[in-house]
Amino acid sequence: VNKFCRNTITNWRKLKLPFDSETFVLAVSGGADSVSLLAVFFELKQLGKLKLEFIVAHFDHNLRGKESDADADLVKFLAEKYSFQLVIEKANLSKSGNLEQIARNARYDFLARTALEHNAFGILTAHNQNDQAETFLMNLIRGSGLDGLSAMPEIRDVSSESKTKLIRPFLSWAKRIDTENYCNECEIGFREDSMNSDENFLRVKIRKKLLPFLRELNPKIIETISQTVKHLRFESQNSSEDALEIGDELSSSNLATLGESKRYRAIRKWLMHHRGNLRSIGMKHVESIDRLSRSRKSGREVELPGFERVIKKEGMLLFRKQRLKKP
Amino acid sequence: VNKFCRNTITNWRKLKLPFDSETFVLAVSGGADSVSLLAVFFELKQLGKLKLEFIVAHFDHNLRGKESDADADLVKFLAEKYSFQLVIEKANLSKSGNLEQIARNARYDFLARTALEHNAFGILTAHNQNDQAETFLMNLIRGSGLDGLSAMPEIRDVSSESKTKLIRPFLSWAKRIDTENYCNECEIGFREDSMNSDENFLRVKIRKKLLPFLRELNPKIIETISQTVKHLRFESQNSSEDALEIGDELSSSNLATLGESKRYRAIRKWLMHHRGNLRSIGMKHVESIDRLSRSRKSGREVELPGFERVIKKEGMLLFRKQRLKKP
Repeated sequence: VNKFCRNTITNWRKLKLPFDSETFVLAVSGGADSVSLLAVFFELKQLGKLKLEFIVAHFDHNLRGKESDADADLVKFLAEKYSFQLVIEKANLSKSGNLEQIARNARYDFLARTALEHNAFGILTAHNQNDQAETFLMNLIRGSGLDGLSAMPEIRDVSSESKTKLIRPFLSWAKRIDTENYCNECEIGFREDSMNSDENFLRVKIRKKLLPFLRELNPKIIETISQTVKHLRFESQNSSEDALEIGDELSSSNLATLGESKRYRAIRKWLMHHRGNLRSIGMKHVESIDRLSRSRKSGREVELPGFERVIKKEGMLLFRKQRLKKP
Repeated sequence: VNKFCRNTITNWRKLKLPFDSETFVLAVSGGADSVSLLAVFFELKQLGKLKLEFIVAHFDHNLRGKESDADADLVKFLAEKYSFQLVIEKANLSKSGNLEQIARNARYDFLARTALEHNAFGILTAHNQNDQAETFLMNLIRGSGLDGLSAMPEIRDVSSESKTKLIRPFLSWAKRIDTENYCNECEIGFREDSMNSDENFLRVKIRKKLLPFLRELNPKIIETISQTVKHLRFESQNSSEDALEIGDELSSSNLATLGESKRYRAIRKWLMHHRGNLRSIGMKHVESIDRLSRSRKSGREVELPGFERVIKKEGMLLFRKQRLKKP
């Protein structure tokens, strides 16, 4: 058995995931990472190592015209070749605002719906150590505490309302080059995402410029950061075990009993409760909410990304999301 | 009063440091940072804000011939100008091994001795937010957990045997440019350290290449990292409060009762106990010691930087330092 295949099954066992009777959704964009995800789970099924059902889910962002069509065609071709059920959804995204974030939200929403419709155990994505290092550096550059630097977990609930798992079976051991090599060994093609070379995205700048420079200082920088993230995640979990119990409202007087680090943690946990994630939340937002909680002046509020606000009313912090009219 | 001066005294108050009757050692190399340290404490004394004694300590590394002499001459000139007592020591450093580390150890040893001889409350160094960000990035690149990424504290004991404080009064608020500007406002000269442009040192590569690139992605990268470090340090302190009690020996069976993150923390705390610091200790060393503690084979050991070793004997981990003969 191929090494990439062996590593995948070893990690699957380590994560205590089911070996039979369940359905998983494979998130496949058509890039090397997700094509290798598709191929390796086909191989593991062929070999009889996993007796699972797989559904290929492709979200067509519909942002790059013919290129988007070609991505979808490749995924269609591969799903047919492997006899996997295929679900494709074509998006109609609003081009105003943070396009990257809008696209991600729409994609995860599609994946969660697909998993729910097929009663799937979980969604598999192809994130690897490179993505992990990039996420760490992105959060570092934007400003972050322990939570942000802990980057991505291997398994989490897909949202606060759902028990469906989001699983990243490559995250702890595979590098991007491993997924490309595996595709080449299997002699299957993959698509280059033209967004990968769009210098406007912070992630792409990190991938194309920052990481190559860091590699000069430490040739194993991807593994090193990935290892650091693993340890920070442990610390973060230890630390959140003794954090405040969080409800819909957050009481200023309860917060005031805590030291700075625990106040910040309680605020992050509360934001997590309302938003399902901490994306785009930087240290400055947490600090502003902390200041709001201690402020004696009324009528103040803190604005968060995505048209969200935190207001203070009778000593309680309240979370408000402004729903925008559909265009 | 000048803003730099005002920030220094505000932070002095925040750190709850004494305002009279004590002696402090000023560590002055002759660069902009430490010349501004000398000048600002002279100004605060002149203004009657601080009724303290100051002793200027200059360690001549004696590594750069005439340049070293010129550094010492500048410090001598400034100490006389400000009527501060001056202590200079000329080193004779072994040029084999990690020169940067050997020089730092010798310098801190000199500063600690000087403080002890003058019964000083503490040693003041001119580390600022830039140094903090560089230390963070150095530890990140070398591989580190929460402790290493927590970088430098504002106050610590100068060594495990001494109650003398090592204090960094600029660390939390000043940037390098602020110290240069203050020197210029005071119309006092400072020296450029030629080591600052020696591309062989990782720290210099970070300063001259990595940070300028990061600044393109976030113009406030120094403040951002400095803020992140502050929060990681809080988390690290919270987390170490419930760590294992540490003696000279570390019991494998005690370690085995802990989860991974707490084992690593106990090992780091134990190394700290023996070494006084965690410099040059990376995640890989901690992991090796952890493996050693769980290994059933006898006769194994872990080598650490600086001719240190960890051996296992009858279920106990022992720390050994090989003293080298003086050349």
